[in-house]
Amino acid sequence: MVDRTSDTRQPSSVGTDFDTDSSGSSVSMLKAVGFAARHSFSNLKRFEFERAPAKADEVELAVLFCGVCHSDIHQVKNEWSNTVYPCLPGHEIVGRITRAGSNVTSHRVGDLVGVGCMMDSCGSCGPCQAGDQNYCEGPNSWLATYNGPMVPAAKAPGEVNTYGRDNTYGGYSNNLVVKASFLLNIPSSLRPEVAAPILCAGATTYSPLKHWGVRAGQKVGIVGFGGLGHLACKIAKAMGAEVTVFTHTNEKLEEAGKFGISAVPEKDKDALERLKSSFDFILSTIPEKHDINPFIELLKRDCTLCVVGALEPLEPVNNMQVAFHRKQVAGSLIGNLADTQEVLDFCAKHGIGPDVELIDIEDVNDAYDKVEKGDVRFRYVIDMTSLEAPK
Amino acid sequence: MVDRTSDTRQPSSVGTDFDTDSSGSSVSMLKAVGFAARHSFSNLKRFEFERAPAKADEVELAVLFCGVCHSDIHQVKNEWSNTVYPCLPGHEIVGRITRAGSNVTSHRVGDLVGVGCMMDSCGSCGPCQAGDQNYCEGPNSWLATYNGPMVPAAKAPGEVNTYGRDNTYGGYSNNLVVKASFLLNIPSSLRPEVAAPILCAGATTYSPLKHWGVRAGQKVGIVGFGGLGHLACKIAKAMGAEVTVFTHTNEKLEEAGKFGISAVPEKDKDALERLKSSFDFILSTIPEKHDINPFIELLKRDCTLCVVGALEPLEPVNNMQVAFHRKQVAGSLIGNLADTQEVLDFCAKHGIGPDVELIDIEDVNDAYDKVEKGDVRFRYVIDMTSLEAPK
Repeated sequence: MVDRTSDTRQPSSVGTDFDTDSSGSSVSMLKAVGFAARHSFSNLKRFEFERAPAKADEVELAVLFCGVCHSDIHQVKNEWSNTVYPCLPGHEIVGRITRAGSNVTSHRVGDLVGVGCMMDSCGSCGPCQAGDQNYCEGPNSWLATYNGPMVPAAKAPGEVNTYGRDNTYGGYSNNLVVKASFLLNIPSSLRPEVAAPILCAGATTYSPLKHWGVRAGQKVGIVGFGGLGHLACKIAKAMGAEVTVFTHTNEKLEEAGKFGISAVPEKDKDALERLKSSFDFILSTIPEKHDINPFIELLKRDCTLCVVGALEPLEPVNNMQVAFHRKQVAGSLIGNLADTQEVLDFCAKHGIGPDVELIDIEDVNDAYDKVEKGDVRFRYVIDMTSLEAPK
Repeated sequence: MVDRTSDTRQPSSVGTDFDTDSSGSSVSMLKAVGFAARHSFSNLKRFEFERAPAKADEVELAVLFCGVCHSDIHQVKNEWSNTVYPCLPGHEIVGRITRAGSNVTSHRVGDLVGVGCMMDSCGSCGPCQAGDQNYCEGPNSWLATYNGPMVPAAKAPGEVNTYGRDNTYGGYSNNLVVKASFLLNIPSSLRPEVAAPILCAGATTYSPLKHWGVRAGQKVGIVGFGGLGHLACKIAKAMGAEVTVFTHTNEKLEEAGKFGISAVPEKDKDALERLKSSFDFILSTIPEKHDINPFIELLKRDCTLCVVGALEPLEPVNNMQVAFHRKQVAGSLIGNLADTQEVLDFCAKHGIGPDVELIDIEDVNDAYDKVEKGDVRFRYVIDMTSLEAPK
């Protein structure tokens, strides 16, 4: 936890927008520490840095918990070829507000809040106006909680840099500075370490389940039984759907039973044959290139398979399968702010949440290895109090 | 035209279902002639055969015109690995009723009618009950106008053969026997040779344009400018959409102008870049494996690209593109009976139709070569009176 008692900047400095102070002298930077990677081939290591302090519409958080998302690994290893180093990941963040900018009325110091994948968006494009910040069409798209704007200045029209930065440092850190309008409220009945993964894994799976109208009585398939998959199963079940999960991990078949969910081995052709044309919606959460053709066959006519796990070219889809029952293959990217708040409240209401395993920050590199091997049940969450304060 | 005057079977034989007459003696088969392929590597050649005469709920037609669809070529050449030989194609058929079964009240002898891709369906599955015969989920799916049931007995559950046949002979023939409920009415203002291609090319493009709600003011892209593509352009334009066609054929760019349609070379990266995120719906009519990724980029958020041309694995789709704007890639298969009638009436109402080039049946093999080279403007239609009657 950051000791803010010696900080000369007080909430009384009403109206001061520190970032626009060009003299530099009155802006005292916020000391920060986290775990970051310097290169695509390096482990995460302790990294001290400074954050610009909260502007009038921002808050500063002491980070309590941060989930380990498979995206963190993709980004650290530059698997999407767009990583800006140092790379300090973490976008499943629960923390407590330590300071609120002068214009912040929605939250106050001491509030327990969440930050997901987004820290800002343009606010004026069609999607932003429609509340879909996650599909922001501003010149730099939305500002990711780590790794900077989704469209970096170098690739933006006229190389514009609307957020004034190329990189952002996420939640594997002792603190965070974020616009108050991008905060999520953590329901009091959710343990904060359980709430953390809902901010990405929950939103990413809830949003398409909601968008494609999953409802009670429907048959829903979830492909992949990891961090996203196991939470998708719980959410779809709480929506009243009959849920089947497809996994390649034999040991997980039994665990699905504990959740009251049918599990089918991904490669069991006979089982898949019996399930043909029977699903109303299928969500694929596998975080890498995979073959969705066997699952397309399981959809009913006019139904949709949505891929949220893999952000890359998939195996070729056979349009014979798709056209013969007017099916649809869709993609969906995280969730907007409203959906993210909704899924937090939904999980609280239904008493569900991810199965989490708490780790210390020193164990994060080992955790990455295990996530890549599918050897986690089901989401690692870093206890950020395990991180020593910056010197 | 078949001479029916010597036929001893008269419409007075009320209630007789000829096909179920096990003696065989009272059923005089209908002599027929057409052009068929014996093997995947052989040209279409004159082929004499017999058809079972019309049952009580069927009619016999004298075929007047039959369109040449790219599917005919795929099927003749066994490019979908499911061809039953002899293969006698043709599913864009306009003809005149020469005899009506005793239970037929909807049509009478002399009526000008159309037959599209389907001759029958199970009638009792969900899709059939919903009027979507083209997505029939009966054990043999629908009965195609040529090449038999869509699911042949050998691949059906329990090897059931609900239609009692493995092969059907289509419209490259002097006559046809078809269930009256699968007939389409040809509006009087449509020339019969122009109506013919609407029965497949029209239905195949109209159905998805309608299903995905294309309406006036929207921006619609059509990929491919052949038989399907040029008709899709006309239909979408008549729906009030602003239409852009993408073609790889330079000579066709100018021709699009004649239709009042913008044309963009498929490979013009600058033009595609300018059109990014601007389309409400895109229909790909290219009849073979192709890369749809450049066109997915042209869709607005939440919009759909539908592939109707290629019934095979497509080039890998990059889910990064799909997910980042919650797009959908869909497929659609021909159209149901209601949509097929609707598109005939729609074309009549709007005074549109395919650009057709009439050929004699003897020229059909040359026509196939030209269709494969994209060297047709825009649909060959066979004048079936060029076929000598069976001896």
